[in-house]
Amino acid sequence: MAVRFGLVGCGIMGADHARILRSDIAGAELVAVHDKDRGRAERVAADGCKIHADPGQLIADPAVDAVIIASPDATHAPLTRAAIALGKPVLCEKPMATSLDEARGIVDAEVAGGRQLVQVGFMRRFDPGYRAMRAAVTAGTLGNPLFLHCIHRNAVGPDYVTSDLVLANSCVHEIDISRFVLGEDHARVRVVRARPSRKAPNRQPLMMILETASGVVVSVEAFLDAQYGYDVQGELVCEEGTLSLDPHPPTRRRLTGLDGHAVEGDWVGRFAEAYRCQLRDFVVALNGGRFQGSSAWDGYVASLTAEAALKALKSGDTVPVTPGDRPAFYDAAG
Amino acid sequence: MAVRFGLVGCGIMGADHARILRSDIAGAELVAVHDKDRGRAERVAADGCKIHADPGQLIADPAVDAVIIASPDATHAPLTRAAIALGKPVLCEKPMATSLDEARGIVDAEVAGGRQLVQVGFMRRFDPGYRAMRAAVTAGTLGNPLFLHCIHRNAVGPDYVTSDLVLANSCVHEIDISRFVLGEDHARVRVVRARPSRKAPNRQPLMMILETASGVVVSVEAFLDAQYGYDVQGELVCEEGTLSLDPHPPTRRRLTGLDGHAVEGDWVGRFAEAYRCQLRDFVVALNGGRFQGSSAWDGYVASLTAEAALKALKSGDTVPVTPGDRPAFYDAAG
Amino acid sequence: MAVRFGLVGCGIMGADHARILRSDIAGAELVAVHDKDRGRAERVAADGCKIHADPGQLIADPAVDAVIIASPDATHAPLTRAAIALGKPVLCEKPMATSLDEARGIVDAEVAGGRQLVQVGFMRRFDPGYRAMRAAVTAGTLGNPLFLHCIHRNAVGPDYVTSDLVLANSCVHEIDISRFVLGEDHARVRVVRARPSRKAPNRQPLMMILETASGVVVSVEAFLDAQYGYDVQGELVCEEGTLSLDPHPPTRRRLTGLDGHAVEGDWVGRFAEAYRCQLRDFVVALNGGRFQGSSAWDGYVASLTAEAALKALKSGDTVPVTPGDRPAFYDAAG
Amino acid sequence: MAVRFGLVGCGIMGADHARILRSDIAGAELVAVHDKDRGRAERVAADGCKIHADPGQLIADPAVDAVIIASPDATHAPLTRAAIALGKPVLCEKPMATSLDEARGIVDAEVAGGRQLVQVGFMRRFDPGYRAMRAAVTAGTLGNPLFLHCIHRNAVGPDYVTSDLVLANSCVHEIDISRFVLGEDHARVRVVRARPSRKAPNRQPLMMILETASGVVVSVEAFLDAQYGYDVQGELVCEEGTLSLDPHPPTRRRLTGLDGHAVEGDWVGRFAEAYRCQLRDFVVALNGGRFQGSSAWDGYVASLTAEAALKALKSGDTVPVTPGDRPAFYDAAG
Repeated sequence: MAVRFGLVGCGIMGADHARILRSDIAGAELVAVHDKDRGRAERVAADGCKIHADPGQLIADPAVDAVIIASPDATHAPLTRAAIALGKPVLCEKPMATSLDEARGIVDAEVAGGRQLVQVGFMRRFDPGYRAMRAAVTAGTLGNPLFLHCIHRNAVGPDYVTSDLVLANSCVHEIDISRFVLGEDHARVRVVRARPSRKAPNRQPLMMILETASGVVVSVEAFLDAQYGYDVQGELVCEEGTLSLDPHPPTRRRLTGLDGHAVEGDWVGRFAEAYRCQLRDFVVALNGGRFQGSSAWDGYVASLTAEAALKALKSGDTVPVTPGDRPAFYDAAG
Repeated sequence: MAVRFGLVGCGIMGADHARILRSDIAGAELVAVHDKDRGRAERVAADGCKIHADPGQLIADPAVDAVIIASPDATHAPLTRAAIALGKPVLCEKPMATSLDEARGIVDAEVAGGRQLVQVGFMRRFDPGYRAMRAAVTAGTLGNPLFLHCIHRNAVGPDYVTSDLVLANSCVHEIDISRFVLGEDHARVRVVRARPSRKAPNRQPLMMILETASGVVVSVEAFLDAQYGYDVQGELVCEEGTLSLDPHPPTRRRLTGLDGHAVEGDWVGRFAEAYRCQLRDFVVALNGGRFQGSSAWDGYVASLTAEAALKALKSGDTVPVTPGDRPAFYDAAG
Repeated sequence: MAVRFGLVGCGIMGADHARILRSDIAGAELVAVHDKDRGRAERVAADGCKIHADPGQLIADPAVDAVIIASPDATHAPLTRAAIALGKPVLCEKPMATSLDEARGIVDAEVAGGRQLVQVGFMRRFDPGYRAMRAAVTAGTLGNPLFLHCIHRNAVGPDYVTSDLVLANSCVHEIDISRFVLGEDHARVRVVRARPSRKAPNRQPLMMILETASGVVVSVEAFLDAQYGYDVQGELVCEEGTLSLDPHPPTRRRLTGLDGHAVEGDWVGRFAEAYRCQLRDFVVALNGGRFQGSSAWDGYVASLTAEAALKALKSGDTVPVTPGDRPAFYDAAG
Repeated sequence: MAVRFGLVGCGIMGADHARILRSDIAGAELVAVHDKDRGRAERVAADGCKIHADPGQLIADPAVDAVIIASPDATHAPLTRAAIALGKPVLCEKPMATSLDEARGIVDAEVAGGRQLVQVGFMRRFDPGYRAMRAAVTAGTLGNPLFLHCIHRNAVGPDYVTSDLVLANSCVHEIDISRFVLGEDHARVRVVRARPSRKAPNRQPLMMILETASGVVVSVEAFLDAQYGYDVQGELVCEEGTLSLDPHPPTRRRLTGLDGHAVEGDWVGRFAEAYRCQLRDFVVALNGGRFQGSSAWDGYVASLTAEAALKALKSGDTVPVTPGDRPAFYDAAG
């Protein structure tokens, strides 16, 4: 039987999840949507798809097997808790919570419930490039990892994002994906500020340096105003060789003195395959498979690490990262 | 409602279609399979999937909405005719037929039936790279096309494939895809033989040169024994610029003195996205959309052109290609 | 002692030879120049550099050890003969002669003189990429060659160049370099015309197909009006792998939605290293080393093959190429 | 008249300078050599080239116009001082001195002499890639620089190089070249240690983070044991786009499942063009041109910055870099 999804939040991300579900996911059906803006909900709904005026009702609807949360950040934690309370699986856009307490609360609730229900939408874990990096680390084909260099560039960042928010909104992706690729927690973080671009004088491009427990150095350039496009790169440096992300459009063009290829404009294009596989594998997990994505624990650790980075940004010092021990519950789960 | 598929032929290609249908296609279900080798059929069948001992029964099964034909080449035409007779849509692996008369018979039967039912499995038409080339030609962004250079290399070809069969089995892909990209028929063909590789002394690598009606020159290297991998390349040369296929794995590796990326081993990997989109868009077409792939007419023209190429190979001369006018039926259809 | 050069012809190519000689060549000196336009000669001459009003005088000047001929094509053969008559080494821009008889006359004169004096300015033989191809063929590291695919594109060709002249002026480079890379003569040639670009309606882009004696197929696209830049590419396809030219500027740029590198505007940039090494190795040869470039015999064979290609273009047929046996003189020489 | 060079030190670097001088440099002559190992000196000397038993004699030899110093590090400063004392230009391999006092002494002596004589062999300033970066910064074509990411990997480092020496020997190149590219001094430095590779357990790969006065962040990975090859990369990130080094051999190879190109084994190959241009432009400067390379002041600042980095490595803190004001002498000079 197809998994019947309810979607909370019909903005850009929500609408894109709906589109992918309908066109590209086997064994899934979108049966209910909610958005506080009813017009947006209607534009995403289709024949036979209910529109709920209240997100709690949608989650409680017996016709809904599983929930996708793509509503504003502040609603993520309470809605995720509501789903856990009803024993319904939930794919929650990042961040899972806007405070560490909330995040920890979700972990505790899930552990208390005894069953893994929560996946955080760190879609990069489904990107074929990062998967290949993870596989290389697991297999040891290149030896031990020593460095992971990350580049995170947006074309034009939103006005409200301050240097602080760059850590919480953008760098948090690299925090999660570097834990995934390297298979271990971070131990320390420091952050260096570059001067602002004149295109965005109110925030600073950042360089975050993380060290893992075993001594791998993770460097992250976070630059929201790169103008030329959305560009996420990475190089994993191991004892015997390196593996680099090499994102590419399918064609290369020679025109007016230039030989090259187009750069993506945003994450929707750059991570299209990741978004598709994230939903596909979520459905597989709900049908008895294993969760492949970030767990509630991973979401909690990402937030905790981003908080440490924020302290490092403000103080200029090296700040320890202390996630503590992962509950044994997640050993089985993930 | 999901489209209920029956699959005839559970070899490599058939099994792969089954896998894709189940894991990656929205709104589709595999309900019946057939293979003359029952063991193979059983390995592909799953819970709730019927196994038919006879392909005709499978096609006639009222639980089957649409048919995928991946059985041996000689069976393609009669099975396709059977599906047309019952008004069932059919996705038939190439070649659609093993003689021109059979191919023309399918066209005539479909036209007589008054409804487009047949799609030929020239999956390259769904490859994002060729799609981008087609889009550039349609939009005219690079000016008129002048050349299309094609490379078709297999790692290790099967023993039974002679130089003649290289044209029918391999070059037929370039014949179809160049018609698709350029949007016009070929007018002439010549073929030049290279000396055999010592790895496969019984067949010659070929260079096929096609000219279209408007004067575009299509060059095709067909080499079945390239050893290093499966490599399909293409460059579209227009009045103001060029567009090249740039197939790439998601990562690039530096190891032992080399910086580069892996080459695919076969078409399953190289055209994975094309195979997925082919099935996805076929389901969309069955739900009221438009057929995007090669029609029966396209399959017929591909065979006719391959036959002209065969004459050119044998004679060393330039041979005209004369597909005649496309039935008006296909104007509406495709 | 430094080799004292005289330069005949101070146009673009001549001036560039002078510049390279002065800035980048060890053991060489430019002591005399001639141009029928005295102003051009003066602009290239420098302190201590004589200006000769007559090219014959320059060649005969006892202060001149060796001659570079970069004057108009029709003067190449008589000036080269004059240098041979005086026993002076000569680096002659291509074409060595404008008729086969003249070309053969140079060969005969040089053989009669008993000493190799003539090098034809097919500078590609000094390009590191073609050198690497030649080395791979000689060493057999990739097995026997089967195909050599060549692309020769200019940004904007001169008005006076007709389709016929494309063969003599442009394709002659590929004729020479494919003989160099493959180490054998061509046996047959055919030429296919593409439709003209609307940017240059009076000439046709061409596809030339050469076959060597041993059965290697050489394909050459010659397109003088590619607009986007000067682009010379090549792929050598062997039994076990391929080697491609990969010309690159030293940097790659990401800007306004594009990731790529600049394409050269003309041959001066694309073959800068080849031009430098050509002169450097010519000086080495004059100091007792071996001639590395195209000999008079190579120049003769290139012209003969271009003539066969011209017949093929006009007739549409396959035309044999019959250079005859190389004089034994050149075995020792080259 | 040709510049007559004397060479002190005939090891790998010295022998290579000799080779380049003789084969690739116009207007230069090698007239004298010295090495404390007479056999090495003899192998590098040629007809007409004197061998001096004492380096001071060589520098004082009236037949020597200019000196190249490629002897052991500890001898660089005294020999450079000796050349300055005699008013002879000197190209000194890096490091210019092994203590800051010595380095400052050279600056003071040169300034006192009133004439620029010293160039330090930071050959990267002549690499076409870094030159293109410098040109982009100067022209402002990509906006202001914000980051410069540098990668410095050796295949296999020498045993005696400790983590400390990685800074002085390897990172000093990035210290100098980032000053050159950005056109400003560094203000602060910190260093993060990665865990050692098991291939070289006694030293740690390092990540050095420099900040310039204006707020550009320079990141440097220094890894001496990368195994796969010698790999120097860089990406200049500006307000509107980026420029990356893209070092490439002239050909790309497809073989046994891999499509890629060879990585250089050491700096001699990677920076061959830089070494050639360094000597060529030194000769141009001696003939009345401008010094293009690192001055004694640049050499002093590089040493001073490397010392600050060493403090940062030992303390784990951020350490200020305070080169002080450049003597006005160098405004005119460089």
